[in-house]
Amino acid sequence: MSERDLKRPHNPQASSDPLDYNGLNCPVPLQSYPNIILGHGGGGKLSAELVEHIFLPAFQNDHLALLGDATVFSIDGGRLAMSTDSYVVRPLFFPGGSIADLAINGTVNDLSMSGAKPLYLSAAFIIEEGFPVAELKRIADLMGAAALRAGVTVITGDTKVVEKGRGDGLYINTCGLGIVPSGVNIAPNRAAVDDVIILSGTIADHGMAIMSVREGLEFEADIESDSAPLNAMVAAMLEKCPDIHVLRDPTRGGLAATLNEIAQASQCGIEIEDCLVPMDPTVQSACEILGLDPLLVANEGKLVCIVPKAHAAEVLQTMRSQAVGKEAAVIGRVVTDHPGMVVAKTSIGASRVITVPIGEQLPRIC
Amino acid sequence: MSERDLKRPHNPQASSDPLDYNGLNCPVPLQSYPNIILGHGGGGKLSAELVEHIFLPAFQNDHLALLGDATVFSIDGGRLAMSTDSYVVRPLFFPGGSIADLAINGTVNDLSMSGAKPLYLSAAFIIEEGFPVAELKRIADLMGAAALRAGVTVITGDTKVVEKGRGDGLYINTCGLGIVPSGVNIAPNRAAVDDVIILSGTIADHGMAIMSVREGLEFEADIESDSAPLNAMVAAMLEKCPDIHVLRDPTRGGLAATLNEIAQASQCGIEIEDCLVPMDPTVQSACEILGLDPLLVANEGKLVCIVPKAHAAEVLQTMRSQAVGKEAAVIGRVVTDHPGMVVAKTSIGASRVITVPIGEQLPRIC
Repeated sequence: MSERDLKRPHNPQASSDPLDYNGLNCPVPLQSYPNIILGHGGGGKLSAELVEHIFLPAFQNDHLALLGDATVFSIDGGRLAMSTDSYVVRPLFFPGGSIADLAINGTVNDLSMSGAKPLYLSAAFIIEEGFPVAELKRIADLMGAAALRAGVTVITGDTKVVEKGRGDGLYINTCGLGIVPSGVNIAPNRAAVDDVIILSGTIADHGMAIMSVREGLEFEADIESDSAPLNAMVAAMLEKCPDIHVLRDPTRGGLAATLNEIAQASQCGIEIEDCLVPMDPTVQSACEILGLDPLLVANEGKLVCIVPKAHAAEVLQTMRSQAVGKEAAVIGRVVTDHPGMVVAKTSIGASRVITVPIGEQLPRIC
Repeated sequence: MSERDLKRPHNPQASSDPLDYNGLNCPVPLQSYPNIILGHGGGGKLSAELVEHIFLPAFQNDHLALLGDATVFSIDGGRLAMSTDSYVVRPLFFPGGSIADLAINGTVNDLSMSGAKPLYLSAAFIIEEGFPVAELKRIADLMGAAALRAGVTVITGDTKVVEKGRGDGLYINTCGLGIVPSGVNIAPNRAAVDDVIILSGTIADHGMAIMSVREGLEFEADIESDSAPLNAMVAAMLEKCPDIHVLRDPTRGGLAATLNEIAQASQCGIEIEDCLVPMDPTVQSACEILGLDPLLVANEGKLVCIVPKAHAAEVLQTMRSQAVGKEAAVIGRVVTDHPGMVVAKTSIGASRVITVPIGEQLPRIC
């Protein structure tokens, strides 16, 4: 831990209001981990460090440096988007979905967050020796159904098998390709002061669904993953308002990580109101019981949209007209204060800084 | 094992010459394995069964059904190629290369085998908890260097971490995108009678390099992997002869699997001469000592080119002018006899059927 890091309050949530934002906006220092820990895969600060200190220097290029969910590039005058994710979720089946749904929807959604219309996917399987062939078939069939639902085609693939004890049943990687409509320019650094922040529905459903089944927890009502393809809703939103500034799906690291990435990329401040963030009451209770911050819990069928104020109402209405966006809500706005930081107003009128999680609360959530 | 399977000679190589080819050309029956075994990842019959019985029905579409190393499709009038592979090689570093080289060159080569000019790659890492960060950095840097050498850019990526004991250090997936020049139409079903079969160099180097280090074997001379990008050579070949019919890199399953795939896709016969297949003497000795058939051993920097007879000489010359093709040789031809089958003429003038391997001789070779 660096000297600078030591000066930062360890629990900014506990700071008194008004906050002294000076000094909080320092660059992330390199943590000294000689070996990879689970947190490096959590989509938080540790993941960002790997990217910043290892992958960006190794692969140096402007495309990668943008750090979007998908990368947009031009071929033959057309603009395409490409995105990849490996899926290592445990267990493979959970309430509301399976690794098959995540593997299709996750990559479809990452492409959609660049405004692209997802078209083609690859699917690569790393299978642990001894995995039941019937279960592989079930998962492949579910992936096929999910691809059909999302309107994408799996056109190429790969299968590898590793010895027993060198995997965990099944890991799936998908990589997707989509086409970006002309006139669309979506990027986290486009968030601008006075833009409105819209969230497409309740948060923390996916993470808590995984948690409940993994830990054998039972709640009054079932908690189900929100895994769903968002491309149809995004297409409808872009038709209404091609000038959407930012789209992002708050997966690993939750809403907190997503909003922080946008704040940092745009060097604007982000202000949300706690009471405006939609949450299922059962999910909220579960988070409280387990001491988990719902803002840090992964979602798999939600998006954050940042849009000029003038278009916010019609974009919101368009989202609400779709099943996956029926609970969409305005949760905050982009502000001039505290550039690069996310602040939440609490129900009693206080402010707290929403920080990027260091690692992850729930490993192997997707 | 089905009744039909029981009727097939278990070791056709031992059959007397002339062979009775009738009845040998039957479709692969479904093996009854309830659980995945290592052989399902070997690139042989078992791998083909997974594709045929599980993945093709699940993802049904014409693109995937072509079963190429890469899939070619059209967007906005231009033709693109996409290909993916996961890399699970053990150990991560071996004589002549590393998982980093394979992860770049393997996908670059798969794209090249469709005639595409590889442009963009994704890179996704599944890291086992406890993996040294310094080793990850070394591998990322080597991937960056390999990408630079091959002239491709890694534009998007993903990092996942799994618990200790749920992986094997590091698995890497890359997915690549390339652009197919107009006028180029390369596919395994384009092999035509009288076409000439050219191999770009010695076989079995990669597999035996892995084998030697994994088993701690020492030979008189070092055996090094042939891992190399083939895209520059392919571009030169296509410039000389845009009408190349088939390109394929004989990786998992070796030359035997590659030639059988071409024979089956084209429903032509393939005839090669054992003595024409280039082999490094040390690699040949190693295969003999270990009882491995070099035709079944993986290569990572070689290609098979099937070209109309009229262009064979200039394509061969072009290949030999490149470092990665300097030992290129004509090894056989496409024939009307025994459609769908591969036959090798031995040095004493006998014939033997080259069958597709069931599983794999060497697991986790790439």
